[in-house]
Amino acid sequence: MKCFIAGGAGFIGSHLADALLNEGHNVVCADNYLIGIPENVSHLQDNTSFKFYKADLANKSEVEIIFGKENFDYIFHLAANSDIQASAKNPEIEYKNTFLTTYNILECMKKHEVRRLFFASTSAVYGEKIEGAMSETSGPLEPVSYYGGAKLSAEAFINSYAYMNGMSSLVFRFPNVIGSRLTHGVVYDFIAKLKKDNRNLEILGDGTQTKPYMYVSDLTDGILHLLNVEKQGVFIYNIGVETKTSVTAIADIVCAEMGLKDVTYNYTGGKIGWKGDVPTFEYDLSKIHATGWKAKLTSDEAVTRTVKEVLACKL
Amino acid sequence: MKCFIAGGAGFIGSHLADALLNEGHNVVCADNYLIGIPENVSHLQDNTSFKFYKADLANKSEVEIIFGKENFDYIFHLAANSDIQASAKNPEIEYKNTFLTTYNILECMKKHEVRRLFFASTSAVYGEKIEGAMSETSGPLEPVSYYGGAKLSAEAFINSYAYMNGMSSLVFRFPNVIGSRLTHGVVYDFIAKLKKDNRNLEILGDGTQTKPYMYVSDLTDGILHLLNVEKQGVFIYNIGVETKTSVTAIADIVCAEMGLKDVTYNYTGGKIGWKGDVPTFEYDLSKIHATGWKAKLTSDEAVTRTVKEVLACKL
Repeated sequence: MKCFIAGGAGFIGSHLADALLNEGHNVVCADNYLIGIPENVSHLQDNTSFKFYKADLANKSEVEIIFGKENFDYIFHLAANSDIQASAKNPEIEYKNTFLTTYNILECMKKHEVRRLFFASTSAVYGEKIEGAMSETSGPLEPVSYYGGAKLSAEAFINSYAYMNGMSSLVFRFPNVIGSRLTHGVVYDFIAKLKKDNRNLEILGDGTQTKPYMYVSDLTDGILHLLNVEKQGVFIYNIGVETKTSVTAIADIVCAEMGLKDVTYNYTGGKIGWKGDVPTFEYDLSKIHATGWKAKLTSDEAVTRTVKEVLACKL
Repeated sequence: MKCFIAGGAGFIGSHLADALLNEGHNVVCADNYLIGIPENVSHLQDNTSFKFYKADLANKSEVEIIFGKENFDYIFHLAANSDIQASAKNPEIEYKNTFLTTYNILECMKKHEVRRLFFASTSAVYGEKIEGAMSETSGPLEPVSYYGGAKLSAEAFINSYAYMNGMSSLVFRFPNVIGSRLTHGVVYDFIAKLKKDNRNLEILGDGTQTKPYMYVSDLTDGILHLLNVEKQGVFIYNIGVETKTSVTAIADIVCAEMGLKDVTYNYTGGKIGWKGDVPTFEYDLSKIHATGWKAKLTSDEAVTRTVKEVLACKL
């Protein structure tokens, strides 16, 4: 298959490129380097099955150029602003990078009759009002962050384009995903802060925010698994791990892996780390587990492995 | 209160203008005349509490001009393409008129610190996968028409802007709304067709599509009722009537009101009238009924009254 990865130089996009190439597919990536970096795909530059476009997919003409040249079988749309704290100050970042990239890709898929789409959605579409474990049939969907709003908005357009044009789409609602090539988020932040000052650590919120963290190869494994399971139609799946890790527990793991003792934790206080943060959530994963897939690493194991990998690289 | 009605020259928007003026509010309307017409608000032109802008709200600078001049207390956003069959051929109509108008209004509300929004959403956000009566907590939300996709997309952005900027928003998911000043839809179509040919009537689908039809003054009554009930936060309500009317029953009512007998019904066949049509749906209205509001007219009564009113006017 000839695959297009929108956001292919990003953290998850580049891991997906590796996984698809490993399965024998041809991979074309595009990225605007808003968050993605050339280093994430530099190891692929001599691979004849790999091709890269630097492009801003929020600009329809740039998407059209790529679709005009290539003849894609499958679109993997992972382009987005994934830095929720950045867009909290400027929602236009989400409108352009998360929503408009989706609309432009759908328009080009329609025009060029590309029929299969994978979309990276998020737990943030659920917002805060759902009680208990969130399943794909839970409602109301009332996202609180601009990121969650733009992702739900993208899902909405995908559903209608898929129905109206006979496309099949696979929508995964990601939890926090971590691993090598991480560019931001709590694990990344703690390591960066402790490299600057190994005696004090500022922790946003009260440290009790507790979420599932998923290791990136478990995620790409889940995507490849579902590609072969699902056929015609729109399919939405929660993907994640059954366990969770608190922010304070992440701090403990980072300190332990860095060999630091007696670090003073300075909590900024409050139940959430920043406006738009969701302090805790729990997924009902029965739908994806019923397909025969399950994550291999627990949330704590994912954190520990990620810390080791990030420490082994430059930061 | 100084109220802004986006889409104020439209069918529902102009009725809402009447209702708000009647309650003593100041009303500023804007409309691009895509579907709205000057005649819908011409009776208000000498009213000193009324003001009108011809403007394309999909163009951010035009929204900014209005918000820069006026100092609104309350925004009623009813601007949209409401002709689902038209946008089925060209989804850009929905992207611009339904989604982008919302994004631009939210950006201007944020900038000018306007904190209260009413949004006209739709039953089309639910799509086709929900079994039984649809409540505000039902899922998954998988709209099939571009109209439903753009409306859900707008809801998603509204939720996040409301949360991030301390706005309150009231989202009503409308059923089919009918009454005088109707511009399209099955009741309008049947009358127009029978005026051209009073012996044969083409009916899209097999005529068994059965939906709740709500009379427009019941809708504006519900809006005014809820304005006084809800306070801070995001509130989503289904609004509608408990009864339904089939497409064939609408044809029967139209023929009876026009005094026509022996009209031959020619069905185009199939369960839906057009691609993106949802053949039937049923609302769970317990949430809005619990606020003390209930529609006065049944679906059949709404159809009969609308037919009488449309026949009494020019068409």
